[in-house]
Amino acid sequence: MEKYLVIHGPNLNLLGIREPEVYGRMTLKEINENLLREAAKNNVKLDIIQSNTEGEIIDLLHNANDMHGIIINPAAYTHYSVAIHDAIKAISNPVIEVHLSNIHNREDFRKKSVTAAACIGQISGFGFYSYILALHALIHHNQS
Amino acid sequence: MEKYLVIHGPNLNLLGIREPEVYGRMTLKEINENLLREAAKNNVKLDIIQSNTEGEIIDLLHNANDMHGIIINPAAYTHYSVAIHDAIKAISNPVIEVHLSNIHNREDFRKKSVTAAACIGQISGFGFYSYILALHALIHHNQS
Amino acid sequence: MEKYLVIHGPNLNLLGIREPEVYGRMTLKEINENLLREAAKNNVKLDIIQSNTEGEIIDLLHNANDMHGIIINPAAYTHYSVAIHDAIKAISNPVIEVHLSNIHNREDFRKKSVTAAACIGQISGFGFYSYILALHALIHHNQS
Amino acid sequence: MEKYLVIHGPNLNLLGIREPEVYGRMTLKEINENLLREAAKNNVKLDIIQSNTEGEIIDLLHNANDMHGIIINPAAYTHYSVAIHDAIKAISNPVIEVHLSNIHNREDFRKKSVTAAACIGQISGFGFYSYILALHALIHHNQS
Amino acid sequence: MEKYLVIHGPNLNLLGIREPEVYGRMTLKEINENLLREAAKNNVKLDIIQSNTEGEIIDLLHNANDMHGIIINPAAYTHYSVAIHDAIKAISNPVIEVHLSNIHNREDFRKKSVTAAACIGQISGFGFYSYILALHALIHHNQS
Amino acid sequence: MEKYLVIHGPNLNLLGIREPEVYGRMTLKEINENLLREAAKNNVKLDIIQSNTEGEIIDLLHNANDMHGIIINPAAYTHYSVAIHDAIKAISNPVIEVHLSNIHNREDFRKKSVTAAACIGQISGFGFYSYILALHALIHHNQS
Amino acid sequence: MEKYLVIHGPNLNLLGIREPEVYGRMTLKEINENLLREAAKNNVKLDIIQSNTEGEIIDLLHNANDMHGIIINPAAYTHYSVAIHDAIKAISNPVIEVHLSNIHNREDFRKKSVTAAACIGQISGFGFYSYILALHALIHHNQS
Amino acid sequence: MEKYLVIHGPNLNLLGIREPEVYGRMTLKEINENLLREAAKNNVKLDIIQSNTEGEIIDLLHNANDMHGIIINPAAYTHYSVAIHDAIKAISNPVIEVHLSNIHNREDFRKKSVTAAACIGQISGFGFYSYILALHALIHHNQS
Amino acid sequence: MEKYLVIHGPNLNLLGIREPEVYGRMTLKEINENLLREAAKNNVKLDIIQSNTEGEIIDLLHNANDMHGIIINPAAYTHYSVAIHDAIKAISNPVIEVHLSNIHNREDFRKKSVTAAACIGQISGFGFYSYILALHALIHHNQS
Amino acid sequence: MEKYLVIHGPNLNLLGIREPEVYGRMTLKEINENLLREAAKNNVKLDIIQSNTEGEIIDLLHNANDMHGIIINPAAYTHYSVAIHDAIKAISNPVIEVHLSNIHNREDFRKKSVTAAACIGQISGFGFYSYILALHALIHHNQS
Amino acid sequence: MEKYLVIHGPNLNLLGIREPEVYGRMTLKEINENLLREAAKNNVKLDIIQSNTEGEIIDLLHNANDMHGIIINPAAYTHYSVAIHDAIKAISNPVIEVHLSNIHNREDFRKKSVTAAACIGQISGFGFYSYILALHALIHHNQS
Amino acid sequence: MEKYLVIHGPNLNLLGIREPEVYGRMTLKEINENLLREAAKNNVKLDIIQSNTEGEIIDLLHNANDMHGIIINPAAYTHYSVAIHDAIKAISNPVIEVHLSNIHNREDFRKKSVTAAACIGQISGFGFYSYILALHALIHHNQS
Repeated sequence: MEKYLVIHGPNLNLLGIREPEVYGRMTLKEINENLLREAAKNNVKLDIIQSNTEGEIIDLLHNANDMHGIIINPAAYTHYSVAIHDAIKAISNPVIEVHLSNIHNREDFRKKSVTAAACIGQISGFGFYSYILALHALIHHNQS
Repeated sequence: MEKYLVIHGPNLNLLGIREPEVYGRMTLKEINENLLREAAKNNVKLDIIQSNTEGEIIDLLHNANDMHGIIINPAAYTHYSVAIHDAIKAISNPVIEVHLSNIHNREDFRKKSVTAAACIGQISGFGFYSYILALHALIHHNQS
Repeated sequence: MEKYLVIHGPNLNLLGIREPEVYGRMTLKEINENLLREAAKNNVKLDIIQSNTEGEIIDLLHNANDMHGIIINPAAYTHYSVAIHDAIKAISNPVIEVHLSNIHNREDFRKKSVTAAACIGQISGFGFYSYILALHALIHHNQS
Repeated sequence: MEKYLVIHGPNLNLLGIREPEVYGRMTLKEINENLLREAAKNNVKLDIIQSNTEGEIIDLLHNANDMHGIIINPAAYTHYSVAIHDAIKAISNPVIEVHLSNIHNREDFRKKSVTAAACIGQISGFGFYSYILALHALIHHNQS
Repeated sequence: MEKYLVIHGPNLNLLGIREPEVYGRMTLKEINENLLREAAKNNVKLDIIQSNTEGEIIDLLHNANDMHGIIINPAAYTHYSVAIHDAIKAISNPVIEVHLSNIHNREDFRKKSVTAAACIGQISGFGFYSYILALHALIHHNQS
Repeated sequence: MEKYLVIHGPNLNLLGIREPEVYGRMTLKEINENLLREAAKNNVKLDIIQSNTEGEIIDLLHNANDMHGIIINPAAYTHYSVAIHDAIKAISNPVIEVHLSNIHNREDFRKKSVTAAACIGQISGFGFYSYILALHALIHHNQS
Repeated sequence: MEKYLVIHGPNLNLLGIREPEVYGRMTLKEINENLLREAAKNNVKLDIIQSNTEGEIIDLLHNANDMHGIIINPAAYTHYSVAIHDAIKAISNPVIEVHLSNIHNREDFRKKSVTAAACIGQISGFGFYSYILALHALIHHNQS
Repeated sequence: MEKYLVIHGPNLNLLGIREPEVYGRMTLKEINENLLREAAKNNVKLDIIQSNTEGEIIDLLHNANDMHGIIINPAAYTHYSVAIHDAIKAISNPVIEVHLSNIHNREDFRKKSVTAAACIGQISGFGFYSYILALHALIHHNQS
Repeated sequence: MEKYLVIHGPNLNLLGIREPEVYGRMTLKEINENLLREAAKNNVKLDIIQSNTEGEIIDLLHNANDMHGIIINPAAYTHYSVAIHDAIKAISNPVIEVHLSNIHNREDFRKKSVTAAACIGQISGFGFYSYILALHALIHHNQS
Repeated sequence: MEKYLVIHGPNLNLLGIREPEVYGRMTLKEINENLLREAAKNNVKLDIIQSNTEGEIIDLLHNANDMHGIIINPAAYTHYSVAIHDAIKAISNPVIEVHLSNIHNREDFRKKSVTAAACIGQISGFGFYSYILALHALIHHNQS
Repeated sequence: MEKYLVIHGPNLNLLGIREPEVYGRMTLKEINENLLREAAKNNVKLDIIQSNTEGEIIDLLHNANDMHGIIINPAAYTHYSVAIHDAIKAISNPVIEVHLSNIHNREDFRKKSVTAAACIGQISGFGFYSYILALHALIHHNQS
Repeated sequence: MEKYLVIHGPNLNLLGIREPEVYGRMTLKEINENLLREAAKNNVKLDIIQSNTEGEIIDLLHNANDMHGIIINPAAYTHYSVAIHDAIKAISNPVIEVHLSNIHNREDFRKKSVTAAACIGQISGFGFYSYILALHALIHHNQS
C-alpha cells in the first residue's frame, strides 16, 4: 500500500481562526480529516504533520525515505526558503506544492515561489481541495 | 448536465512535435480525448477549442455565457496579456488556469503569470493531467 | 462635414456588466448614443467600432485615411502594445487616447501608457465623458 | 453661481518665454483670459492663482472650502510632491489635473504622476485647451 | 525648566477631517491639548507649530537653538525631503520622528523614511499617542 | 491584572558584548530588570523570553492566547521573516515591534521591516527605552 | 527548387509613408520586388506575406512546413511577443530575424528582442538590404 | 559693469557649524566675503542670497533678468527638485551649479543631480573655491 | 592545543546523494574524516556538527567561546540569513565561510553571500578541499 | 579599388579551440581565408587584424582613415566598452558589427550591445558567414 | 617650480573632428596650447599626454610621483573603469577630473562617474576651460 | 616539475603603499617572495607577472599553454572584465581567483565577480595568504 507524507508549513495550525477571509473557515483538523478520507477512498496511507520551523521541515523531507510522495504547503517559507528548495531537490521522492489561496492574486512578494521550482508542480487557490488535487496528482504520477 | 469550455492558447496545436523535452510527446488530440473521456465519466459536457490569437481567446471567453466553468491554458499569453486578464475578470464564470510544464521551473519571464490573478486558481506542471485536475476542481467548485 | 473614428479596445463590449465598481454601469451602447448625440450637436460625423484583437485595431487605424481624427480607448493594450503605438505613429491623423477610469489611481502596471506617447494627448478618469471631452479636443484641434 | 479655483504650479508664470517648443507661445495671461471667457460662457466664476512654492499650493488647496471644484497644473511638482497628493486627498472638492504638454511623450521621469492618483482624472497634451476641457469636466461632474 | 519644540508637517492642520479612516478623528487642536497637558505633568514647556512648507520647516529647525529637543512629524515630506534630513543633521538638538499611522503598513512609497536617518529614533502607528511617547523619549534622553 | 509577553529575537542574548557601538553596553538581563521594574510600577505582569529560532518565535506568538499584548524585537528576522509576519497577523493580541538601534540609520537592508506591517506600530532607536515606550503604548492601547 | 517564406510584421504595409526618417522611403511593394529579383537570381522561390495580427503570424509560421526557411521582420512584436518566440521554437525550419533600422540605436525598449533568441540569427540596420542579406544567409545555411 | 547672482540653497546658512567634517569650518559669511573680494578683483558685481525654500529659489531665478549669470548651490534640492531644474531651463541667463563637497564621493542619492542637466556645467568638491571657479567660468563664458 | 568548530549547514547531511553533479559524490562522513585527519596532522582539535535549523546554527556560534576559530558552510542560509550574519558579528572568534561548489558559477541568487561579509574571508569551489584550505587559513590566522 | 578593415576583438585568436560548442570549430586563420577569397571575388581589398586590448582597437579605428569601411567583432568588449563606442562615433567610415554566435540567445549580459548603437547595423548568429554578410553589406552601402 | 600632469583619455586625440556638436571644434593641440600658456602665466610646468588604453593611463598615474597634481579627463573610461578609480586612490597626488561637455546633460550612462569618487573634485561642461579651471583649482589646493 | 603562473592585476604593483588599511602593508615583492618560498617547499615552479592592462592579462592567459595551473588576482577587472572571463574560459588550464581583501565586505560593486564564474573557485580575504591557499588548491587539484 502506497504511503504519502503531507507537510503543513508555518501558521497553518491556526487555520480557521487566522485571517478567515483569506484562508477560509475550515480548521487544519478538518482539512486533515478530508485528506484521510480521500486517501482511504484511494487505498493509500497518509502521514500528516505540521511545523512552524524551517529546519524541522527540512528534517521531515530528509526522513521521508519510505514515502511514495510528498505534498507540501510551505506557507510563508514558499517565498524565501532556499533551504527548503534545496531539501526538496536533495531527495528523490516526488513533491507537489499546494496553496489554499491563489498566491498569484495577493501581495507581490507572495506571487514568487522559491520552492516550487524544486517540485513536480504547484496547485494554488482551491482551499482544502488543493490538497485533494495534489493527492490525485501524486497517485497519477506514481501510476504512469 | 453541466457544460465546460476548454481553451488551448497559442502553439498548443503543435503539441507532441513542439519541444517534446519540455511539453511531452502527447498531441493535443490525445489530450482532448483524455479530457472528453474524463468528462463523460463525470457526467459533464466539454467544448474544446484552440486559438493562436489573443483577440479570439477574448471573444471565446466573452461568449461563454452558458458555460458552468472554463479551463484555460493561455500558454505564452500567460506572461503579458493584460487583455486576457481583463476578459477573465469581465465574465462571471469560474475560470482555472493550467500549464503542462511547471512554469516555476523555467525561464524567469515564464514564472510570472499576468492572467492567473483573474482566475480561481492555477495548476502547473502535471502534463495533460493538469487539465484533468482542473476539471475536477471546477466540478468540486460548482458543487460546494 | 468632418468625420471622426472612435475605436473601443478589448473587453469594452462588456461595459455595464464588467467590474461596474471600476468602469461604471453605463453600457457601450449608451456611451455610443451619447457620443453620436454630441457629434450631431457639433455637426460632425462619427464612425464607432469595437474590437478585441490587437491586429484588427491596427488595421482600423491604417484604414482611417479619410477621417479627420481618431478617439481611441486601447483598454488593456494601452499598457503593452508597441504595435498599436507604432500604428498611431504611422498615420498622420490626430489621435487622442481616452480612459473611463483614472489609470493613475489603479494597479502599478496600469499607470504606464505605451500608446499615449504616439497620441496628441490623453484624457483619463471621467467615465463616458472622457470620450466627449476627446471629441471637443479633436474639433478644437482641427479648427486651430 | 458655481465657483472654481485654478491653480498654476511652478514656472508657469514664464509661459510663452519658457521653452516655447515644448509649452507653446501663449502666455499665462492669455490662458487665463481664455479660461475666464469660457467660464463666463458657462455661467461659472473662476479664481486663478499661480505659485512656485509647494507649501503655498497646499495652503491654496486647504483654503478652497467654498469652491465647487479645482483645476490644478502641478507642473514639476506632479512628479514628486507627495505633500500635494496628500493635500488633494485631504479636501473633499473635486480636483482635476491638467498638463499643457503630453507628459507621456517626454522624459521618463515626467511620465509618472504622483498627484494624479488623488484627483478625479487627468487631461494632458492639449495646450491651454487642457484647462478648457477640465473646466467642462468639472461642470459636467457637478451636474451629474 | 526644559523646553521642547513640536513641528507638525504638511496637511496635519486638517486632521480629524482628512481621511479619518487612516489618521483618526482627533483634530490637531485636540492632539496639541493632550501634548500640553502631558508636558505640564512632566514639568516641561512645549512650543507647537504647524507648517505646510518645506523651507519653513527647515527655518523652524534652524531657529530651535534654545530648545532641549524636537518632535517632528514630517508627514509627506518624510518620504523625499533630503533638505529636512540635512536640516536635522545640521543642528545639535535631539530630534525624534513620529507618525500617527503605521507607515510600514501603507503604500510602498510611505514605508521609506528619508528623514528618520537624521533623527535619534522613530515612533510610528500609535495615533496621537506617538507624540506622547516621543515626549517621554526626549525627557528620558535628556536625563540619561 | 494585565499580562504582557516580551519576545527578544535572535542574537539579543549577546547584548552588551555584541557590537556595543551599535547596540549599547546594557545586557539583556539588565534590560529585562528595567522592564520588570517598569511593569511593576504600572501594575502589569510580564513574561520575557529570548529565542534564536524563527519557528520557536512563531510558536511563542501562537501560544500567547492569555496575553493582553506582545512586545517583539524580531532583530535580524525583521528584514525577511514572512513567517513571523504571518504569525503576528494570525493572532488577535496587539503586537508592537521595537528596535534598540535606529534601523533607518543603518545598512539599506535593515531599513525595510517585513514584520512591522503586521503590528500596531514600531518604535526604533531608543536603546532599552524602546521597550519601555512599547510597554506604555500597549497599556495605553488597552485602556483606550 | 528551394522555397522560402518572408513574413512582414505589423505596420510594415505602411512603409514609405510611415516615419520615413526612421524606416526610409522605399515602399513594401518595392522591397518585395527587390526580394523577388534577388530570389530569382539565386534560383529560389519566395512566398511573401504581411500581417498586423500576432495570431495570424503564428499561424503562418505553423503552416510553413514545406518551406526551406523563413525570414521574419516581427516589427513591434519583436519586443514583447513570447507567443511568436514560442511559435518559432515550435517549428523546425530555419528562421532569421531582420530589421530595417538599427534597433540598437533607438529607444531602450526596442533594443531588446524577445523573438531573436528563437531564431538562427538577427540582421539589423541595413534597410531593405537586411532582407537580401537574410536571404543569402538562409541559402548559405541550407547549403552548408 | 557685469552683475552676477549667487544663490545659496537650503541649510547653507549653517555652514561652519553644520557637519564640519563634510562641509568645512568656513562660515557662509566668510565664503561671501571671499566671493565679493574675487568679484571686485574681476570688476564684476555680485548679489548674494540664501534661501531654504524651493519656491523662493525659483522666484529668485525668475527675477534675475538683469543678471549676466547665476551661480547656484542647490544643496539638498540638487537631488530631487524638478521644479528648480525647470526654473533654470525657463530663463536664458547662464547658470552654473556648484558644490562644496565632492558629491560623487558621498551617499548614492547625492551622486545624482537633477538640476545640473539644466545648467552650463557643474563644479563639485573644492570647498568655497568651487564658487570662485564658477565665477571665473561665468566671466569666461560671457567673454567668449 | 588549539580547538576549532566546523559547522555544516542545511542539507549537507545528504552529501553524496544530493545532486552529486553539483556537490560531488563524497559523503559528509568522508569529508569529516578528511578534516579530522588534516587536523591531527596540524596538531589541532576539531568539533564537527551539522544542523538544518537556522536558530540552532546561531546557538552553535554563540556557544563557541572556547574555540580558536570556526569554519562554517552556511549552505542555503548563505543567501538570506541576516540572523547568522549577525551571530558571526556578535562573537569574537575568527570565522571562515566555505562552499563546496563555486557559488559564482551558479544561479544568480547563489552568487550573493549575506553571511560572508561578517567573516574573515570566503573559500568557494574546491569541494571538500575548501574545508581543508579554511583549516589552514585559520591556523595561519591564529599564528600571525 | 575599395579597401576595408576587419577587426577581430579579444579571444578571437583562440577560435576553433575556445568553447567550440558555442563558437564553432573554424579557426581565425580559416575565417580570414574565407574573407580574403570573398573580397577577391568582389574586387575589394581587406586588411585584417586581431587584438585583445581595448586601447589598441581604438587606435586601429582612429587610423583607418583610408578605409572605405570597417567590419568589427568587438567580442566581449561589445557589452561594456563605451570607449570603443565613442571611437566608432568619432570616425566617419561606415562600421558594421558582427558576431559569430547569436548574442540574443545567450547569457543576459551578452544580449546588450554597447557598441552596436554607434554602427550602421549588426549581424549576429551566422558563424563566419556573419563576416561575409557584413562584407556584402558594406559594399552595398558604398554603392548606394 | 610646481609641475602638473594632464592626462587626456580615449578618443580625445580626435577632438575637433569627433562629434563637434558635442565636443566643440577646438583640437587637442589647441587645448594643450591654451593649457601651456595658462601654466606659464601661473609659473607652473605641465606634462601633457593622451592615451586610448586603460592600462597605460593607470601606468601614467603610477609614474607621476614627482608631480604636484594631476588633471585627468578619463573620457569614456569615466563611466566604468574601476581600475582607474583604484589607480587614483593608490597614489597620493591630488587629482581633479574634468569633462568638456556637461555629462549631467547627456545619455543616462554618462551621468554616472566611477572615477570622480577617487578625485578631489570634478569640473564638467565648460569645454577647454574645464581644464583651465582645474589648473587653478590644483594651484589653489596646493597653496592652501 | 609542475609549473604555475601567477598573474597580479591592476594597481597591485603599488601594494604596501596603496590604501594599506584595506590591502595591508606587505609589498608585492614580499608577497612574491613568500609565494616562491612556498612553491619551492612544494617542489613546483612559479612564473609571476603583474600588469595593469586588460589586454595584456588576456595575452598572458592565452600564452600559458605549458603551465599546470594559474592563480589570478584580477583586482579591479574582477568586477567588469567580460574579456578576461572569456579568456579564462577559452583556455583549458585550471585557474583560481584570489583577493587580498574580503570582497564581500566592501562596496556593493566589489561584491560581484564577473571573472570567478570562469574559474575553478575563488579565495577571498586572507591577505597574501589567499595566494598560498590558491597554490595549495592548484597542487591538490592536479593531484586528484
